[in-house]
Amino acid sequence: MNKTRLEAFSDGVLAIIITIMILEIKVPHGHEFADLKPLIPKFLSYILSFIYVGIYWNNHHYLLHGLSKVNGKILWANLHLLFWLSLIPVATGWMGEHNFAKAAMAFYGGILLLCAIAYVILQKTVLDVEGRDSVLAKALAKDVKGKASVILYTVGIVASFYNEWISGAAYFIVAMSWLIPDKRIERVFASKN
Amino acid sequence: MNKTRLEAFSDGVLAIIITIMILEIKVPHGHEFADLKPLIPKFLSYILSFIYVGIYWNNHHYLLHGLSKVNGKILWANLHLLFWLSLIPVATGWMGEHNFAKAAMAFYGGILLLCAIAYVILQKTVLDVEGRDSVLAKALAKDVKGKASVILYTVGIVASFYNEWISGAAYFIVAMSWLIPDKRIERVFASKN
Amino acid sequence: MNKTRLEAFSDGVLAIIITIMILEIKVPHGHEFADLKPLIPKFLSYILSFIYVGIYWNNHHYLLHGLSKVNGKILWANLHLLFWLSLIPVATGWMGEHNFAKAAMAFYGGILLLCAIAYVILQKTVLDVEGRDSVLAKALAKDVKGKASVILYTVGIVASFYNEWISGAAYFIVAMSWLIPDKRIERVFASKN
Amino acid sequence: MNKTRLEAFSDGVLAIIITIMILEIKVPHGHEFADLKPLIPKFLSYILSFIYVGIYWNNHHYLLHGLSKVNGKILWANLHLLFWLSLIPVATGWMGEHNFAKAAMAFYGGILLLCAIAYVILQKTVLDVEGRDSVLAKALAKDVKGKASVILYTVGIVASFYNEWISGAAYFIVAMSWLIPDKRIERVFASKN
Repeated sequence: MNKTRLEAFSDGVLAIIITIMILEIKVPHGHEFADLKPLIPKFLSYILSFIYVGIYWNNHHYLLHGLSKVNGKILWANLHLLFWLSLIPVATGWMGEHNFAKAAMAFYGGILLLCAIAYVILQKTVLDVEGRDSVLAKALAKDVKGKASVILYTVGIVASFYNEWISGAAYFIVAMSWLIPDKRIERVFASKN
Repeated sequence: MNKTRLEAFSDGVLAIIITIMILEIKVPHGHEFADLKPLIPKFLSYILSFIYVGIYWNNHHYLLHGLSKVNGKILWANLHLLFWLSLIPVATGWMGEHNFAKAAMAFYGGILLLCAIAYVILQKTVLDVEGRDSVLAKALAKDVKGKASVILYTVGIVASFYNEWISGAAYFIVAMSWLIPDKRIERVFASKN
Repeated sequence: MNKTRLEAFSDGVLAIIITIMILEIKVPHGHEFADLKPLIPKFLSYILSFIYVGIYWNNHHYLLHGLSKVNGKILWANLHLLFWLSLIPVATGWMGEHNFAKAAMAFYGGILLLCAIAYVILQKTVLDVEGRDSVLAKALAKDVKGKASVILYTVGIVASFYNEWISGAAYFIVAMSWLIPDKRIERVFASKN
Repeated sequence: MNKTRLEAFSDGVLAIIITIMILEIKVPHGHEFADLKPLIPKFLSYILSFIYVGIYWNNHHYLLHGLSKVNGKILWANLHLLFWLSLIPVATGWMGEHNFAKAAMAFYGGILLLCAIAYVILQKTVLDVEGRDSVLAKALAKDVKGKASVILYTVGIVASFYNEWISGAAYFIVAMSWLIPDKRIERVFASKN
């Protein structure tokens, strides 16, 4: 089975996820600049989630790039990841609508954590096909950033019950750490090709 | 005529169907965890429908994979399938909004049944092109799962007038039976390639 | 310039147009079968528009299939067609919401007419590139169906001021006439390949 | 890394941006022609933004056409552009809903300006990969239209505080200047191929 449709379908779903979030930012009712003010928390949530979906698209791109064959397990592990990613707009909307309220921050962190777990599962499924000696396996050998992200999400969720800003900072730091493209994979592939 | 655009268009429509369902899950009005509670039936309906659309995408992938040429009949049989699939979000929304009410359960089952019939028609149209001796024809020779699904959907629709849980169980069992990728087709293609 | 992205972008826009129309069919407020009744006109409008967008996708597929090179004029003629097609959901929603009221029927016909004109312009632009002696030019030589459609749309628009059913019948007849794939083009291409 | 997915993802996002703007044009409540009247400013805003997104898609097409390799910087410069473009529907909706009010005109111009800046950044990132001697570099050597656009956006934003029509005229002139496909790039590539 070829991976073209897997990539095309994932690109489609990710493109829709990243775009429909904008539908949560409703057109202001008034026509003064002041009417934009209530949009600020929504806008900040949108930026954060846009970066997260962008990161997942980027990493998904790298992960499948080295893949030679696709099987049923990979198809479903990929759909499982897309499922949790598809909940990001709701979590983003809730967080933005209620000005980063505690419950919303915990919920957002929970969805991010489930996305991260789903990504690890997809990564494992791809590695099972590629083999433990593959270029990808070497590139992902330690996966420090992946593990640190899971810890920071958990910190963010727990912190949200005490202080929503610590929570927000945790999610922001994870996003920033991934914004820098994964040099490891890029380097290993570059040295191979 | 090539099948690239047929696949691309179908992927696009399926990606949108699977993603716009999330728009039915409206952002909660309050900012407490308790405000998430009314979302539970909507969330459960979303999971079920996500799995169904995922299954259709998976099977569509397999079905067209072996296809060599596309004609007008296949284009329209495919659009006919996409039409019924496009009604899944409305049916899902109705079921989730009214806590799996009887009429909504019957309606949901009806849409699933019409999707299944449309899929059988598409399958027949593809087999007419591929020929009765093709790999695909052999792989689909008995189609036990296809027939069992139609029976279970009918059971689900009838049961919904008496007990919505039997109905829900029927739809859930069908989804689970398809989650396991179609070993038959995978095996036949694998033995060929 | 290659035509891959032109096709991919058009497929994306058409897939979204055909799918967002379902968002106009709002989930019923009650949970009885009777609550589905007000959806019937919306559902009928949706079927008609789904067929129309399907027809445009089909014909677009055939039209660009024979195309070898893309220029700026084709890109803009294509965007112009997509613009009018993108108004079909609004026209469909208005028609369905107000039970095929006269003004809505005229508006719907007007949008269909503008789509048809945009399609003729795109066709001309493609033929300018392909040349008057091309396979496509021969296939489209008379274009009886295209001309008949424009006449029927006009009849439908005028009729809507007197009787909305004549108008509806005109739009329905055009859709049915195109549902049958364009044998001429299919035959000419088949005889060539 | 290949650029196929970069193009596919961008096409998906652009197709959604151009299409969801139509969701801002709500179905009229009444069923008379007069009920279409309040839609006119929304419709005019939609046309302008449709042309803008079409221009970006067109230019994006040309820009990446000559690209041979993709790196992490290009991926993020592209996502950055898509981010600002994704705000066009909100800005369009605000402008259309409030009949081209001053604040909305300034906001719309601000988003257009940020899109233009993001495009310049993407262009620079692509040129860094292609090299200063590449065909693309020559084609974009002066970029008069790009610079004039930035000036006109700024004029539009400042003017919006005094007269919203001057502002609207500025945005309209920029759109028209780009509607004419970029002869420079087309010519240079044509002379090369």
